[in-house]
Amino acid sequence: MKEKGFADRIKLSSKSHSSRIVLALDIIAQKRYQLLDQALSMLNTVSQYIAAVKINYHLLLPLSLFTDIKKIINLSHDHGLQTIADLKLNDIASTNLIASNYLWDVGFDAIIANPLVGYEEGLEPVVKKAHEMNRGLILLAYMSHKSAREGYGLTILSEGLRQEKVYEFFIRRAMEWRVDGVIVGANDLDILSSIASKVKGLILVFSPGVGAQGGDPSKAIMAGADFLIVGRSILDSKDPLSIINGINRVTGLME
Amino acid sequence: MKEKGFADRIKLSSKSHSSRIVLALDIIAQKRYQLLDQALSMLNTVSQYIAAVKINYHLLLPLSLFTDIKKIINLSHDHGLQTIADLKLNDIASTNLIASNYLWDVGFDAIIANPLVGYEEGLEPVVKKAHEMNRGLILLAYMSHKSAREGYGLTILSEGLRQEKVYEFFIRRAMEWRVDGVIVGANDLDILSSIASKVKGLILVFSPGVGAQGGDPSKAIMAGADFLIVGRSILDSKDPLSIINGINRVTGLME
Repeated sequence: MKEKGFADRIKLSSKSHSSRIVLALDIIAQKRYQLLDQALSMLNTVSQYIAAVKINYHLLLPLSLFTDIKKIINLSHDHGLQTIADLKLNDIASTNLIASNYLWDVGFDAIIANPLVGYEEGLEPVVKKAHEMNRGLILLAYMSHKSAREGYGLTILSEGLRQEKVYEFFIRRAMEWRVDGVIVGANDLDILSSIASKVKGLILVFSPGVGAQGGDPSKAIMAGADFLIVGRSILDSKDPLSIINGINRVTGLME
Repeated sequence: MKEKGFADRIKLSSKSHSSRIVLALDIIAQKRYQLLDQALSMLNTVSQYIAAVKINYHLLLPLSLFTDIKKIINLSHDHGLQTIADLKLNDIASTNLIASNYLWDVGFDAIIANPLVGYEEGLEPVVKKAHEMNRGLILLAYMSHKSAREGYGLTILSEGLRQEKVYEFFIRRAMEWRVDGVIVGANDLDILSSIASKVKGLILVFSPGVGAQGGDPSKAIMAGADFLIVGRSILDSKDPLSIINGINRVTGLME
């Protein structure tokens, strides 16, 4: 029997934990040596109520990949959670391949990349290797911060002089490359729903920008997000579980 | 007296070592525990004949930042070399700031970022902090791989319906944000010379893509590159110094 891929695995963990939350584990500690313990402790507190964990430079830079980060990944897996490495990878093929191999080696289930870098001599070997190994690739389509508009929202003139937005071009790439997910900010609901309607049933939509960045969880789900990426509003709360439960209550389960 | 900024420091190390080479220290080892020793040993071999060292995921992921990478940076500084962290950073401001602070803490002199992410809530705090600390920011403008054309070479329609290429837009950003360097591949000499002529005397041009990727060192310098980023052709050689000396001979000194 073929092993389930990343998309199926995260849907399963979402169902079994009744949550669409991808926790952005962006821990900031007073002292660097506290980072690992705080990360593990937060995970133990919330693991039954989230679907996945996203790890970025907050932990990838100060912690050691093959000892500390591996502990976080193993604990996540023990709790039935998927793990996503968020480097917004956008290098040439040889570097992308080395980087992603280190991330797969340590157990990550999916990697986030920036499609601007392109396929040939860019992300191609990462997409292929990910799928060989039943791991996932998630592409940025439209980010959640203010100046996303100045980059992802640019108008480009394609061959045949057809006008389209950069995020529409990135979505075409995501479809052609058969990736597993796209990132679309929850702050611009028109763009979110336009993208979600195009990729529905084919590619999962991960939406950052709720909470600290102002997006509304239930509106993001209504607009078509499959998962919400939430960090600061959970991590900075004195009662992370109440924030999580509040989000889980209004977002409902995946179909 | 004001401390010299990154651009001045790398010009100085270039002059004193009679080299325009930024060594991409992309070490690949049979065993992970050999990485650090091989990196330090390569540095000791070539340090008198290069201007700077660029470190990317080849070392940043498997090695520990505050012990191993710090040793590489300290050895580089002992040899009078500048150090550049190449994450092609493109995250939201809060993450960019955390990531860059860790990189400055450990001693990096400059960071490479992707300008697609934009300024407000994007790279703004990194640019500002870099300059407060006399460190440098280098932006991608046109990469050296085949599909750079599909991303950096896209045509965009700016306000006022003026057409320009993505790399021209990125160069405008580099000028407005007053960054210290831009990355432009050595494989497309027309684009390289067009960009170099625009930023001459204001922003340093770093050019990857010579050697393993087919670009010609002397032609890249003739087209306006200030520095050449060279990795594999040096690292994979049985005689790295002969490759380096060959490049230094044909590229001459900075004015």
